[in-house]
Amino acid sequence: MKLQHVYEAQQFTLPKLLELFNLADDMERIVNRGGTKDYQSKIMASLFYEPSTRTRFSFESAMLRLGGSVISTERAQEFSSVMLGESLEDTVRVVGNYSDVIVLRSNEIGGAKRAAEVSSVPVINAGDGKGGQHPTQALLDLYTIHKEVKTIDGVKVAMVGNLADGRTVRSLAYLLGKFERVKLYFVAPPALQMKQDILDYLARHNCWFTLESDLKKVLPEVDVLYVTRIEQEVLDQHEKINREIASSFFINAEMMKLLRPNGLVMHPLPRLSEIAPAVDADPRSAYFRQTRNGVLIRMALLVSLWE
Amino acid sequence: MKLQHVYEAQQFTLPKLLELFNLADDMERIVNRGGTKDYQSKIMASLFYEPSTRTRFSFESAMLRLGGSVISTERAQEFSSVMLGESLEDTVRVVGNYSDVIVLRSNEIGGAKRAAEVSSVPVINAGDGKGGQHPTQALLDLYTIHKEVKTIDGVKVAMVGNLADGRTVRSLAYLLGKFERVKLYFVAPPALQMKQDILDYLARHNCWFTLESDLKKVLPEVDVLYVTRIEQEVLDQHEKINREIASSFFINAEMMKLLRPNGLVMHPLPRLSEIAPAVDADPRSAYFRQTRNGVLIRMALLVSLWE
Amino acid sequence: MKLQHVYEAQQFTLPKLLELFNLADDMERIVNRGGTKDYQSKIMASLFYEPSTRTRFSFESAMLRLGGSVISTERAQEFSSVMLGESLEDTVRVVGNYSDVIVLRSNEIGGAKRAAEVSSVPVINAGDGKGGQHPTQALLDLYTIHKEVKTIDGVKVAMVGNLADGRTVRSLAYLLGKFERVKLYFVAPPALQMKQDILDYLARHNCWFTLESDLKKVLPEVDVLYVTRIEQEVLDQHEKINREIASSFFINAEMMKLLRPNGLVMHPLPRLSEIAPAVDADPRSAYFRQTRNGVLIRMALLVSLWE
Repeated sequence: MKLQHVYEAQQFTLPKLLELFNLADDMERIVNRGGTKDYQSKIMASLFYEPSTRTRFSFESAMLRLGGSVISTERAQEFSSVMLGESLEDTVRVVGNYSDVIVLRSNEIGGAKRAAEVSSVPVINAGDGKGGQHPTQALLDLYTIHKEVKTIDGVKVAMVGNLADGRTVRSLAYLLGKFERVKLYFVAPPALQMKQDILDYLARHNCWFTLESDLKKVLPEVDVLYVTRIEQEVLDQHEKINREIASSFFINAEMMKLLRPNGLVMHPLPRLSEIAPAVDADPRSAYFRQTRNGVLIRMALLVSLWE
Repeated sequence: MKLQHVYEAQQFTLPKLLELFNLADDMERIVNRGGTKDYQSKIMASLFYEPSTRTRFSFESAMLRLGGSVISTERAQEFSSVMLGESLEDTVRVVGNYSDVIVLRSNEIGGAKRAAEVSSVPVINAGDGKGGQHPTQALLDLYTIHKEVKTIDGVKVAMVGNLADGRTVRSLAYLLGKFERVKLYFVAPPALQMKQDILDYLARHNCWFTLESDLKKVLPEVDVLYVTRIEQEVLDQHEKINREIASSFFINAEMMKLLRPNGLVMHPLPRLSEIAPAVDADPRSAYFRQTRNGVLIRMALLVSLWE
Repeated sequence: MKLQHVYEAQQFTLPKLLELFNLADDMERIVNRGGTKDYQSKIMASLFYEPSTRTRFSFESAMLRLGGSVISTERAQEFSSVMLGESLEDTVRVVGNYSDVIVLRSNEIGGAKRAAEVSSVPVINAGDGKGGQHPTQALLDLYTIHKEVKTIDGVKVAMVGNLADGRTVRSLAYLLGKFERVKLYFVAPPALQMKQDILDYLARHNCWFTLESDLKKVLPEVDVLYVTRIEQEVLDQHEKINREIASSFFINAEMMKLLRPNGLVMHPLPRLSEIAPAVDADPRSAYFRQTRNGVLIRMALLVSLWE
């Protein structure tokens, strides 16, 4: 699989996803052996228009494990030339002369695609704009299910939290919809339920789903519980939601008893109080392993650009 | 050529410039082969007192292509010790104990020279203060002419835009004045014309020049059209200039018809609307190639410090 | 000596200190040979919650001299996930999946210890909170005495400046108290004298000390003069101190005549006007050499984590 750019999750067909996951498995073996120097002539530019140190560190770690090196900014908006009014396209053309791949965190929806159109080197979307794409997060989530549940076909996934605004759950639902016999349980207070566009998409792909508000009922059914943050400002807007959440959506040791012995708890992080710290030691808690898988997926994507 | 420090364009004699350009040509071959590891024991410190991510990335890319590594800050003014009142000299002495070369973007005119006087490792000036020196930009501009026009002696260069305040055009005019039979056309509205000190310098060096305000008349004459930004605040000050500019100094496809088939369009970037995006695809547009040449010149300078 | 984490100076016993100093001597030989590539598979994460570019550069230089590589932020407080309310513990767990060692500059006292408790990779404290620990500074100070005076047992050290609030002098006094026949001279205006807790500690360890206010009297007695900053805000509070300081605590060429020919002047830097620039050229001025020793000590600590 040779990639030119990575700008949206949709560009990956099902066979390409599985190819990518196999490559990520290879990357794990490489990391366990202490990394490689195969890509030591490559330079990655981290071009972040808004800070996202976690994502930046993950990409940079991936690049360094491959033997490459990094030039990095997380305040490209203060880039002297950007302040002077330079277009994203010009910036990308210039940075492409300093590097072999650009990891772009844009502050505009569609920024990565615009960048890819003019760039002389591959561009990877590291999140573009609030509500835009963050394809590598979606890929690492799916890879974690693939790796830990062993198969994605037939998997039963509950998504809980603020599904209406959650970029990660929307992307993951989108990708899961491509697989066979997947069952999705959207668990949220009505005001924060998964939006109609995704439900329509799933219906078109004959993907089974249900809308729920009682997590306790759903928990025993599923292989994966994917928890997302409900931001404080959302809670502040809905006093009613606030109480419902507090009483029914928080994951604690009690809740974990309802989950299957080989079930998984995932979370895109950062977490607030959706998951009690006491749950961290449970082997079914996969959220920190997800971040490790993120490095592997990003290594696999980088390798796919150059092979 | 062994360099001790790089603080101003004036320190380069004509033979040293040509030696540097030959070395930059070598660097291009090295980059095309995937870089070198010859300098893997070297650490470069990017010590930027004001953000200039483009310049920083260019230097860091140069260092990484040579196999070296980088420690980097672009907000040295928030350096805890600087905030506590530490002098530039002390900071440089300390950073010299952490690195093998310091690339300094100072916010004071003459900062690089002061740093060089006390530093135990070589210092390279990456721009010092508004109106101060930025020698590596001048060198990369001159190198681009050398490389693309093949010879600097006898070259005809039009400089257009805000010549009064333009650091890059002033430095380039200064360096071009050292060569034989160069002809310079300064094209600007009278209020933004090249200042008398440079004109006097050129006169002393018997370098031919003319002051123009009609770009269309000049364009068919020249080998190189060097365009610079006229900042919005300058335009705002001069309503009359604003209209003149709009009507006569913007480079578009129509204007390009007046330029020789083997002419060059250069620009220090970032560009605003001085050059229409439609011009980018013209092979005579050298402004993005300039940024690539910047990496090569900086590699050559770094190598010159250690060889 | 295998270390798990480095969170406080107190964790080092006397034999471990000497072992560390021997290792730092080895590191100097390695640096003089151009560094090593032995740790090229290792990634260090610089996780700084407040800027301290000097400390960050020193650690990163140490890591690069060992052949390793670095991912780095000096504004972890703007870490998108931290802004969203992520705990230090969660951040450290995540960053541990991107790196092989975390160098943490926390803004909370005890931050490094909390981090060490949950981290899957070693954590090194690079300063935690105002008034908290900064063990590597204390170690490099002690190493400088060890290296330049040859022995720590029996050394006579004068500490001058703001001893009441000085983290470095407090830590150094603490460590010196573990050695034999050390004599400490605390020279400060009464309001800024060394606090009782340290004096009690020294008394318990039978370490000789005296409280003085006349530096001229003390200078001829000592092997080491350790000068610290008296911050402007402290001076502003005490008009009386201000004048006393100005008249008696500044180190100039005149003062240096009172110091033994083989005495040492140390300073944690940054310096303000406590030491006149004219003193820099005196071979007894060790403050810039201290920063170089800092790289060696940090290399030794990093190696101790992995060997």
